[in-house]
Amino acid sequence: MKKVLLASTALILSAGFAAAEVTVAGDGRMGIIDKDDAAGLSFTSRIRISFAASGETDGGLTFGGSVRVDNYENDQATNGTEGNVFVSGAFGKLSMGDVSGAAEAAVGDLSGVGLTGLDDHNELAYLLNDGGANRSAARYEYSMNDFTAYLSFDNPKGDNEGYGVAVKYAPSNYSVSLGYENVSNGGPSVDHIILGGSAVFGGATVKAVYGRADGGIYNDDDQYGLSLDYVFGATTVTAFGINQFDDETDYGIGARYDLGGGAALVGGVVRDNRPGATDATKYDFGMSMTF
Amino acid sequence: MKKVLLASTALILSAGFAAAEVTVAGDGRMGIIDKDDAAGLSFTSRIRISFAASGETDGGLTFGGSVRVDNYENDQATNGTEGNVFVSGAFGKLSMGDVSGAAEAAVGDLSGVGLTGLDDHNELAYLLNDGGANRSAARYEYSMNDFTAYLSFDNPKGDNEGYGVAVKYAPSNYSVSLGYENVSNGGPSVDHIILGGSAVFGGATVKAVYGRADGGIYNDDDQYGLSLDYVFGATTVTAFGINQFDDETDYGIGARYDLGGGAALVGGVVRDNRPGATDATKYDFGMSMTF
Amino acid sequence: MKKVLLASTALILSAGFAAAEVTVAGDGRMGIIDKDDAAGLSFTSRIRISFAASGETDGGLTFGGSVRVDNYENDQATNGTEGNVFVSGAFGKLSMGDVSGAAEAAVGDLSGVGLTGLDDHNELAYLLNDGGANRSAARYEYSMNDFTAYLSFDNPKGDNEGYGVAVKYAPSNYSVSLGYENVSNGGPSVDHIILGGSAVFGGATVKAVYGRADGGIYNDDDQYGLSLDYVFGATTVTAFGINQFDDETDYGIGARYDLGGGAALVGGVVRDNRPGATDATKYDFGMSMTF
Repeated sequence: MKKVLLASTALILSAGFAAAEVTVAGDGRMGIIDKDDAAGLSFTSRIRISFAASGETDGGLTFGGSVRVDNYENDQATNGTEGNVFVSGAFGKLSMGDVSGAAEAAVGDLSGVGLTGLDDHNELAYLLNDGGANRSAARYEYSMNDFTAYLSFDNPKGDNEGYGVAVKYAPSNYSVSLGYENVSNGGPSVDHIILGGSAVFGGATVKAVYGRADGGIYNDDDQYGLSLDYVFGATTVTAFGINQFDDETDYGIGARYDLGGGAALVGGVVRDNRPGATDATKYDFGMSMTF
Repeated sequence: MKKVLLASTALILSAGFAAAEVTVAGDGRMGIIDKDDAAGLSFTSRIRISFAASGETDGGLTFGGSVRVDNYENDQATNGTEGNVFVSGAFGKLSMGDVSGAAEAAVGDLSGVGLTGLDDHNELAYLLNDGGANRSAARYEYSMNDFTAYLSFDNPKGDNEGYGVAVKYAPSNYSVSLGYENVSNGGPSVDHIILGGSAVFGGATVKAVYGRADGGIYNDDDQYGLSLDYVFGATTVTAFGINQFDDETDYGIGARYDLGGGAALVGGVVRDNRPGATDATKYDFGMSMTF
Repeated sequence: MKKVLLASTALILSAGFAAAEVTVAGDGRMGIIDKDDAAGLSFTSRIRISFAASGETDGGLTFGGSVRVDNYENDQATNGTEGNVFVSGAFGKLSMGDVSGAAEAAVGDLSGVGLTGLDDHNELAYLLNDGGANRSAARYEYSMNDFTAYLSFDNPKGDNEGYGVAVKYAPSNYSVSLGYENVSNGGPSVDHIILGGSAVFGGATVKAVYGRADGGIYNDDDQYGLSLDYVFGATTVTAFGINQFDDETDYGIGARYDLGGGAALVGGVVRDNRPGATDATKYDFGMSMTF
């Protein structure tokens, strides 16, 4: 009674069929975690299933969307606060839904560590798409040679006002990216400018990011950080350090050993420094899976 | 790691296999909407994934069911308030779950407009299956030549009492349908009789509906409306006018341009007239997608 | 636009592809139920979709997981309280998530009756994995010849302490199983020892279980029961009798007629005896479906 989805390599062998299709994938993990809190050493596991749909119009435009099953909780996928849809063609690509803003799409985050991400201290702060009230957000991208330009808007409903612009230059071995974003959701205007760069040296990839925000809760505050990924054989070692807008400074180090077939052993340690509170050392370890 | 679901055309080419199968489909949309309310002009987007399962018994009965992933919210699909199951054979078809009543199945709604449906003012009011408390509802259908007969019951649990009967005569170019329904969920008995007709003239399809209800909140009130769909090439223009039971009179006009492959450009305008309140003009526009 | 998932038999015919895969299956039911309560005679229906994912590492370990769509409610699948993941190899099999404890995995429940299970009075009480707070639980199994050994732990986070050990000996026509479990979630230590046995005599399968618990709410209490499944042709008749820890004694009898293709007619009656309260006789009948 069970149905098995063919892998895409098998699909290519089959005869022609309608362009529209739905792909199913998933990910899982199992392991242990300790976040230096009352829970102490704990088991951690999960499994997630995701869908990606796509089609092609008679005129050659590509359209589609993607969503994870767990994002259907509270019906979020169906009002555009989770999941996203897109249409793309020679004019570029337009996405809508839970899409990151222009600056985040161009500059992104530092490399993270651990089986679970350990609360994602490697992530930078961005102003756009900050919570479901700003969605469906929209982002437009256009690539030419090694340049990509980004333009994005939060959902303009009610008092919402947020937009971003960014560019990225990414030839083969390095990349430079610059983003600007501004929000004023019925309150003070907040600006954020952020610059990122990455470079590959043999098995090593270095990424550095610097951002500065002003207005609202920010007073010319800055955030910056550096991450390093080093690959040797099936092993990737990752380390990062970050200074958040509130001067919280966190560090992380971790490793990933690829077992093949979509499985890996992954572990990490993060030092979470909290100004005015007790610091925490978080770690996890286990097997990650992709299907 | 991604799995691709083959289109049904490819399936037919493959060798025999167990009868039971699950099909996966989806739909999406992206665009703008303004409902003449505090939200004002807003982005709108969503993506939905749906499943349809079916099988065949050794004796030749067909059985199955369908459900959308977003209807699993609050576990509704698993207590029958969303999704439905069916069994069919020479005796007809019996469905259970979130199934429309006999009158609604036979007479249906007017054609609607817009990317999002713009609050579905084109829909008639029906007594049966009015909220999850009346589900699992059950409906039986039997077709012979151009006639289809319908019989339905709301879930009889507790004080629930609701049933409907309907017939539809649908030869090639026109249809006539008549439905009756009665509910008395522990309160006063409410009757509703509704008559519908549709006809195709070349590229034009006209549909008209008239319903009359009495008892409970109704006092020999009536609802009626007319819709027109006109197809020329890849374009369909749709217009409707409706008078609700409470004498609210709404109008809508919209168009759909088929891009092929499951995508279309769709837009509409609806005039929502509210007795004793400020009227609203709602519109939307964007791309709809089916996968 | 619909995609059809190929049955696994068709898959085997296709050429080699990446090991990781996701299988989709489902189940449904439609019928009537009366639980001798205020709801009275009611319709019952549901449809569920489930996923099973698996892959293989380069070193030959198998990994994977499974989850039902309805278990994504409240995001439970993604924090390990529903669904599970596993890794297996020559060392045995390690599972994590919503996995039953060692004793439950080895000894299990009596055979149940009815389309809906009629509140599952055939189930024994087990201490481990008793509610989401104890998950992700972990279980390890190792099989050699006809012996299987089980070891399991509830999630050790916070005050949680629960573990179980069990063995099962299952040659072709009978099985004997013995399990022990202990929990002390920050409170008194509770012990449970449980013994089960089953035997096949032609078309008849008999299963008997005896358990004894002490500590906490238990004072050397016992639970025990017997179930019988008898298969003749397409029909299976099932009966069970059980004495719960609180001396509630319940009985059930039911039948299942296999229609082929994954469908069956199923019905059952359960006598729910409640010490100090009015007894209830529950019954249901309808069609069950697997896809």
